[in-house]
Amino acid sequence: MKKFILLVFINCSLFIGNCSFAQQSDSIIIKHIYDEALKSKISYKNLEYLCKKIGGRLTGSPQAAAAVAYTYQVMNNMGLDSVWLQDVTVPVWVRGPKEHANITSSILGSKELSICAIGSSIGTGYDGIYAKVIEVKSDKELDSLAHIKVQGSKSNVQNLIEGRIVFFNRAADQTEMSTFSAYGGSVGHRYGGASQAAKFGAIGVIVRSATVGDENNPHTGNMHYNENYNKIPAVCVSTAHADLLDDWISTDPNLILFIKTECKTLKDTKSFNVIGQIKGSEHHDEYITVGGHLDSWDLGEGAQDDGTGAIQSIEVLRLYKALNLKPSHTIRAVMFIDEEIAQSGGRAYFANALKFKEKHIAAIESDRGGFTPQGFSIDATKEVSDKIISWSKLFLPYGLFNFSEKGGGTDIDFLKKLNVPLLGLVPDSQRYFECHHSSNDVFETVNRRELQLGSASMASFIYLIDKYGL
Amino acid sequence: MKKFILLVFINCSLFIGNCSFAQQSDSIIIKHIYDEALKSKISYKNLEYLCKKIGGRLTGSPQAAAAVAYTYQVMNNMGLDSVWLQDVTVPVWVRGPKEHANITSSILGSKELSICAIGSSIGTGYDGIYAKVIEVKSDKELDSLAHIKVQGSKSNVQNLIEGRIVFFNRAADQTEMSTFSAYGGSVGHRYGGASQAAKFGAIGVIVRSATVGDENNPHTGNMHYNENYNKIPAVCVSTAHADLLDDWISTDPNLILFIKTECKTLKDTKSFNVIGQIKGSEHHDEYITVGGHLDSWDLGEGAQDDGTGAIQSIEVLRLYKALNLKPSHTIRAVMFIDEEIAQSGGRAYFANALKFKEKHIAAIESDRGGFTPQGFSIDATKEVSDKIISWSKLFLPYGLFNFSEKGGGTDIDFLKKLNVPLLGLVPDSQRYFECHHSSNDVFETVNRRELQLGSASMASFIYLIDKYGL
Repeated sequence: MKKFILLVFINCSLFIGNCSFAQQSDSIIIKHIYDEALKSKISYKNLEYLCKKIGGRLTGSPQAAAAVAYTYQVMNNMGLDSVWLQDVTVPVWVRGPKEHANITSSILGSKELSICAIGSSIGTGYDGIYAKVIEVKSDKELDSLAHIKVQGSKSNVQNLIEGRIVFFNRAADQTEMSTFSAYGGSVGHRYGGASQAAKFGAIGVIVRSATVGDENNPHTGNMHYNENYNKIPAVCVSTAHADLLDDWISTDPNLILFIKTECKTLKDTKSFNVIGQIKGSEHHDEYITVGGHLDSWDLGEGAQDDGTGAIQSIEVLRLYKALNLKPSHTIRAVMFIDEEIAQSGGRAYFANALKFKEKHIAAIESDRGGFTPQGFSIDATKEVSDKIISWSKLFLPYGLFNFSEKGGGTDIDFLKKLNVPLLGLVPDSQRYFECHHSSNDVFETVNRRELQLGSASMASFIYLIDKYGL
Repeated sequence: MKKFILLVFINCSLFIGNCSFAQQSDSIIIKHIYDEALKSKISYKNLEYLCKKIGGRLTGSPQAAAAVAYTYQVMNNMGLDSVWLQDVTVPVWVRGPKEHANITSSILGSKELSICAIGSSIGTGYDGIYAKVIEVKSDKELDSLAHIKVQGSKSNVQNLIEGRIVFFNRAADQTEMSTFSAYGGSVGHRYGGASQAAKFGAIGVIVRSATVGDENNPHTGNMHYNENYNKIPAVCVSTAHADLLDDWISTDPNLILFIKTECKTLKDTKSFNVIGQIKGSEHHDEYITVGGHLDSWDLGEGAQDDGTGAIQSIEVLRLYKALNLKPSHTIRAVMFIDEEIAQSGGRAYFANALKFKEKHIAAIESDRGGFTPQGFSIDATKEVSDKIISWSKLFLPYGLFNFSEKGGGTDIDFLKKLNVPLLGLVPDSQRYFECHHSSNDVFETVNRRELQLGSASMASFIYLIDKYGL
């Protein structure tokens, strides 16, 4: 018994010794990665170009094509082992001329509203639509307003939705710590509200912007029509004007809302994922993917969503080159196209991986903005999660403390079908929804160092995944 | 032996049981505090008023007096148990008309530089000063340039500093994770450079702004003259123009720098700390202080430095009132005056505490900006530190993970002489030095939710300190 204990003790001590030595050398490499990221301004300048010279990059737009060409060119000049375009067929939705909405009340006068069409919505056409507005805050309220019992009648019901424009005014829950949770709890009507309202005969919907911010700018995003109901036009209204509309309706329930949008969906077109890679020295046919999406909404410059993720992914490869790190597995940076509308870029990347039987070790996505990184979300088996979390202590000096969230990212989630462990960069979320899908999403909101810390965090995790496997 | 073990086991289990129950109820109160902070927009509106209606609040200025009156009024309308002004005699330094500097080179032409006088500096006078520039990056380099050995002579030395304007161009270390460390490593010449250069006969100094940002705006701050040497004018230059000046000097070492500043120090004047308090139900003569400073530099609006800290401290008291929390000890919010120049507000608060033999349980300061809080720095005995850190797990859901830094805050540090445990709110530091002491320090850089989370974090820690003591 004594001997056994002694042996165990020696083994433990050796193990701890090795572990500690390995971690020491890992912590040195990680420090080099962070230092290089913080010293070089290249990624910030690349992002500036993407935002200021190209701007908003709606899927299928000329700007999206310019972004494909630009990021291809950037990676092609980095001395990578290969850079290529991967074919993707993408939907094309165009906003058309500036949207317009106003309310007119016989009591209160008239007022212009700050609105925008929701992505994938049909337009109202040149003449616009106008109708009385009915405000609802929940699905239940919508349903009950469509089935008002007429007094004195047992069977007759009145449908207050019929012929109206439905105003979905569900505010984001300010008390959620993660603004993504607050967003998640409020975005449903933007996505599905039009068909929910059309089911009861509404002629259009106006939806409170899904954001925790208090702003004058509307926030767009994508929507989906249920084919069982009429397609009706859908717009988002700024949170400030949602409050105003709510206020006016309480004074004058008969006010008239006029909406004019000329957006439409065109034919699908050809676009690309842009991929660059550094070939692995030992396992060149095994891949670690890091990516962000290149497309964005058109109202801003697609800076935080997701210029930062795309540019950070390129920066991961640059860090490998600058520090002369030779990965054992092949490391790929992927600029996914069309995350915002149909996720056709993510699907195409997955389809190729399946077709060519690629072995993917892990995939990381950055699509929550370029803010100070706080950790990674994980979508993997418990064993793999535990391994990733065991490395987290190396990152406390760099402010990474949060490894508790689940999930990878919209573009890489398809790889889950191949049982690929997925990670998502989790930055500080407080400011994200000030920008998200709105005209506020501009380069000036990105802090150089915060962007750099995100790149360094991803490169460092990839370094560990490449070295120790998952 | 068995019995003993059993007893220990039972005690432990009871202890753990109690602990867990207490923590559960604490976590509920803490959740209420964060919820209330995130839902109310009052503190953000108060900060907007302070920044936009009053603006930069240089110690001894009319704006500082307005800020005293405003925060007194705000607290006076909150139904606190008492609100009063504490006399403080403060220095008065005035910037005078807009400063001006340019370089003229027979090779390169001339160029305007973006500069500002350093606080407490003397001015050049209306006519300005001009001289050749000598660039140094370290104290050692300054010293060696003052003692250049003349070739062919054993004893003769040449002093290249004499009659020149010294350009201190030590850049902040970008690889520091905490921008406060980067700042600390680069700010020495702003504070003491003038006397260091005057010692060797320089007629003025121009100092690279102490910031990790890359900007066109100069960052001011305070300085100190060593009475043994001539007082010479001192200015800061933007980092962008420091790089430009460095570049021009390398081409033309004989270029001439002209500087004109008309700043000066006037007679001391009367000002105030503004104090509001909620009386403790059991220990009304024992105090927990929470504070920020009301004065600021004049170039911006004093938003992040330290409007946020002042307004957050008021918000702590509002949270107590809104949630009907009855503290056992007296809780005080203090708007300290004159942190930036002579710390006379902090001194006065300490002097009063000493004079009236006040018993202070703890003091917390927020003076690192209103960014997402990451934890608290601590300046206390190991026993007290351990107690504070034992609460930290309650705050991981709110993103607080960093309790490793030392220190309290400039204004409360005087209380250390009374052995008061000190805490400092530690927010994310990445963006702070974009604003710090410059025209960038404006309300628009403050995110409402980040500000609110800081207030909630301080209120929650005060709740625990009040309940369990330190």
